[in-house]
Formats: sequence, C-alpha cells, structure tokens
Amino acid sequence: MSILAVGSVAFDTITTPSGQVKNELGGSATFFSLSASYFTEVRMVAVVGDDFTSEHEAVLKARGIETHGIEHAAGKTFRWGGHYTENLNEAKTDFTELNVFEKFQPRIPMEYQDSKFLFLGNIHPSLQAAVRRDMKNVSLVGGDTMNFWIQGTPKELREAVALMDVLLINDGEVKMLGGDSNMLRAAQKVLAMGPKALVVKHGEYGATIFFREGAFGVGRHPFRAPTLPLDEVKDPTGAGDAFAGGFMGYIASQEEINREVLKRALFYGGVMGSFAVESFGTHRLRNLKREEIEERFEIFRELTHIE
Amino acid sequence: MSILAVGSVAFDTITTPSGQVKNELGGSATFFSLSASYFTEVRMVAVVGDDFTSEHEAVLKARGIETHGIEHAAGKTFRWGGHYTENLNEAKTDFTELNVFEKFQPRIPMEYQDSKFLFLGNIHPSLQAAVRRDMKNVSLVGGDTMNFWIQGTPKELREAVALMDVLLINDGEVKMLGGDSNMLRAAQKVLAMGPKALVVKHGEYGATIFFREGAFGVGRHPFRAPTLPLDEVKDPTGAGDAFAGGFMGYIASQEEINREVLKRALFYGGVMGSFAVESFGTHRLRNLKREEIEERFEIFRELTHIE
Repeated sequence: MSILAVGSVAFDTITTPSGQVKNELGGSATFFSLSASYFTEVRMVAVVGDDFTSEHEAVLKARGIETHGIEHAAGKTFRWGGHYTENLNEAKTDFTELNVFEKFQPRIPMEYQDSKFLFLGNIHPSLQAAVRRDMKNVSLVGGDTMNFWIQGTPKELREAVALMDVLLINDGEVKMLGGDSNMLRAAQKVLAMGPKALVVKHGEYGATIFFREGAFGVGRHPFRAPTLPLDEVKDPTGAGDAFAGGFMGYIASQEEINREVLKRALFYGGVMGSFAVESFGTHRLRNLKREEIEERFEIFRELTHIE
Repeated sequence: MSILAVGSVAFDTITTPSGQVKNELGGSATFFSLSASYFTEVRMVAVVGDDFTSEHEAVLKARGIETHGIEHAAGKTFRWGGHYTENLNEAKTDFTELNVFEKFQPRIPMEYQDSKFLFLGNIHPSLQAAVRRDMKNVSLVGGDTMNFWIQGTPKELREAVALMDVLLINDGEVKMLGGDSNMLRAAQKVLAMGPKALVVKHGEYGATIFFREGAFGVGRHPFRAPTLPLDEVKDPTGAGDAFAGGFMGYIASQEEINREVLKRALFYGGVMGSFAVESFGTHRLRNLKREEIEERFEIFRELTHIE
C-alpha cells in the first residue's frame, strides 16, 4: 500500500575519506523514497528550486516515485555541505543554505489523500504535526527528528511525537529527547510521550526497536537488528533515511502490522542503510535489484541467527 | 574440559553513578574464572599478596575453581581505582598500584598441565607467550590485551597474538592493533597476524566474531551477538573478562569446536557480561543459577531472531 513521504530534497556537497562530490542529489525525502520504492508505491511531498531539473526528477520517476507533490518554487534548492573524518559516524556541517526550504509549507495533493502510510522526514515539528492531522486515513505514521528540534522546539516536538506511531532516531537523539543517559530508560521515557514503538539507530552497530507495552502484540523485550560490517563506507549521508525507507516500505508491503513484521522491517531498514553508504549520494539506491536486497537480507539474518 | 586461566587478581576501588566500593575483589582472572565456572572446570594462575584472605579465596572455591596455582607473595595485592561517569562505556583510572603483580611470573602447577583450554588474561604479552609455549596440550587458546601493550610492546604483542586461536578485544583496540579506522579492514589485518578468530566487543552494542578464511568451518561472513539493554548498569568493571569466561567456558563444555559452537559461545559471552554489570565487583557472578543463564540466553536469542 502506498506511502506518502514528506521531507527535504537537497543538493549535498560532501567530503569523506573516499572522495568528494558537489551538489549531489540528496535530502531526507529523496533517500527515503528511493529506498522505500523497492517495496511499495511512494508519493513525495517536498519543495525544490529552479535548479532542480528534469534530470533530477527522472532519478525519482525511474523508480516509479510519484513526484506530483514536489513543489517548484522560485529560488534555489536547499543546499548542505558537510564532511566526515575517519569516524564516519558523525557528519560535520560546513554550510547550510535553506533557500526555498526555509518557507516550506507541505501541501498534500488530493490524489495523495488515500495514502495508508505516512513518513514525516526531519522538518519543523509543527509542520510534521500539521501534515499528520491532515492525513486522516493513514494506518501507520513514522517520523524522524534531530537534535536541533529537540533542543530548539521541545514543546512542538512533543506534540508531533505524540502523533507518530513509530519514531526513528539515533542513540544521541533518544538520550537527549528522553533526558536520560541510559538507553533503555530514555527509550521508555520517549515511548511515554505517545509513540507505539521507537527505533533507535546505532550506526555501524545496527538498530533496536522498543515497543510500548501491548503495542503491536505482546512481549517485554526490545528487538535488535545488526548491520553488515563493510570494508568501505563511501558516504554515510542519507543512511538513516534509507533505513527508514526500508523499514516503512517493508511494513507497507505487508497485509498485517504485527511484531514479527516490525522485526523483519528493522532488518530491511539495516539492509537498505547498508546499500546507501556504498556510494556517494543516492547512486547505490537507484539501480538495485530486488534479488540483491533479498540476498543481503539473508546475510543479515545469518549474521545473528543461531539454531 | 578444564580451562586454565592466567591473569590478575585485584582489589578495585570503583565509583559509578550507582555508588562506590573500596577494595572489592576483582581482576581479569577472577572475573573470567567465576564466569567460566558455570560451564566447566576452571584452574587459576595468578599472584596475590598478604592481604588476600581465606575469605577471598572462599569466593573462588565456592564456585569449584581450582586455586592451587594462585601464588601468595609477600606484599600487597594489585590495586586499581577508577570511576565511570554517565558514559559507562569508558573507565577513567584514578590510580594503579601493581604491588606483587609487578613481578608476576606465571608458574603452571604440574596438575594443571593437562588443561585443554587456556585463557591468557591481560598481562605482559611476553608472559602470555611463555605460558602459551609451556602448555603444549591445549586445543584452544583465547587471549585478551589492551592499548597499553598495543602501543608499548607492539613486537612482543604480535608474537603473543600469533600464538592465540581467538583474540578477544574491544572496538578501539582492534582499530589500534590493526592500524585501520574501519572495523572490518582492521579485523582482517589482525587475523593476518595469526589468530583463527577475532572477537570484537562493542560494549552495550554486543560483539562480533570474525573468522580467518577456512578456520572452524566455511563461510565468508562474521557473526554478531547482541546485548540486552539494561535499565541500570551498576558497574561495568570486569564485563569484558566475564564475557570471555562465558565464551571460553561454553566452548570448553562442548564436544566439538566449530562455527555453530563459536556463535553460541558469543551469545553466552554476552549473557555473562550482562550479569556482571548488574552488581558491583563479582557479586552477581557468585550465585547465579544455570537456569538464570539459560533464561537470559533465550532472551538474547529472541532479541535478534526472525523466522
């Protein structure tokens, strides 16, 4: 069933130990949508400037992504520059030019209204909440956020988080949002804010999903998916959004939503994140084969499977 | 089959966010042996001072550990003081008093010579190598080390590592020893030094075992075990040695050594490490029941198991 993805489209200038790219197509909605497109129908809502060409749009269309909801505004597309040193887990921002993204007001086209799944990329929490309230027929809402909103707009963020079914953030973010240096206690505090499940992304160590008691079935324990140790991480940019795309995309492709599905979804998230980092920008996510995804899923399963 | 454990006995003074203890029984051989004692017969070689009383020895004897090889020297037992802040993954050393440990020359009693398994705790690599060469009948040798030896005695350490079947170290240590910031590449460089397998401990994220090609069976991929997110880590001291004790102890309890056994051993390592951190010092490792270990093993299995 179809997913509506709301977030950013960006042109990224990135330096990593493996090389450099300039004005490379990126952004949270782009990475998410390309990744999810291997599992289900995806519809995008974002804003771009005059510099977003039909060639850029063709990258999305080639994956069957519905781009009708991408608003074309006068001005330049959002640009971000950053670099990674040997510690590829952390990006250092060199510059941020919001451009047309500064005034972004997501507008959901009429024909997107029947979307059954919604992903709220990392944008102002008040915009996340407004979109969530607009979309009355969705069966599951996933969302992301970042330190900037946790510290800068805590009240608005809590309102947005309360409207999400699954929040997907990283270790540092869950500890900051939960106000606790212990991951389990911080996770419990975040779940008390409203979401039914919390996905904590650990970078090269995989991800853990915590469930609110009784949500999606029974069981006291969280669940963890690994990542595949790779001999070269070319560019970690977008890995978190690719993870979310695999996670949500797999869920949207299933008949039912229960814990078993969410566990497998966590593995698919890791699989798509691991592809994302193998190239700069979105290149690895453009031409995957479904068999490659299933093969890697099987490797991930074997990575932690004991009889 | 029996394991010979060579390492330190110490009295630790530890401060964590959960409290403080003074002159608490610890040391690498102590944590390792208590942990391994739930799986197999354990024999210790270490050195202690006049301050090591029969009450301290009783802690080991109560778990059936053979203490005949613990040398009693004139002077004080090795003492270590350290503290942990909110980041419980890293200890800050307050003081180190080597005392009788400074002149430690491991002597293996005659009746230990038939030990089938050997664990070389974190001591001078030349001592590790000498003990390894003495023990001609062992079927598997595990060993630990630390940054101090990686930087201070690199040549001696390489010689010792070449004599080990399985090296168990943490993330930072594998990157330093392998001279590479990428974990997989660093692991491959360490395996090229001689060991058949490398266990990398990731603290709260679990552990990964990398195999040298063809060692212990076939397969291209590493294997990862999780840890259980705990709502309170009282004292991380000794968790790595408890991990090694569960890992080696489980292997020693099995008929055959193959990849399936090593994978399960990695889970048992995580299980024993997770018990260790639930109390200060060795207390949680003194009175476990085998059922508690099996119960937690099952939780660890479910933590990553998909159908």
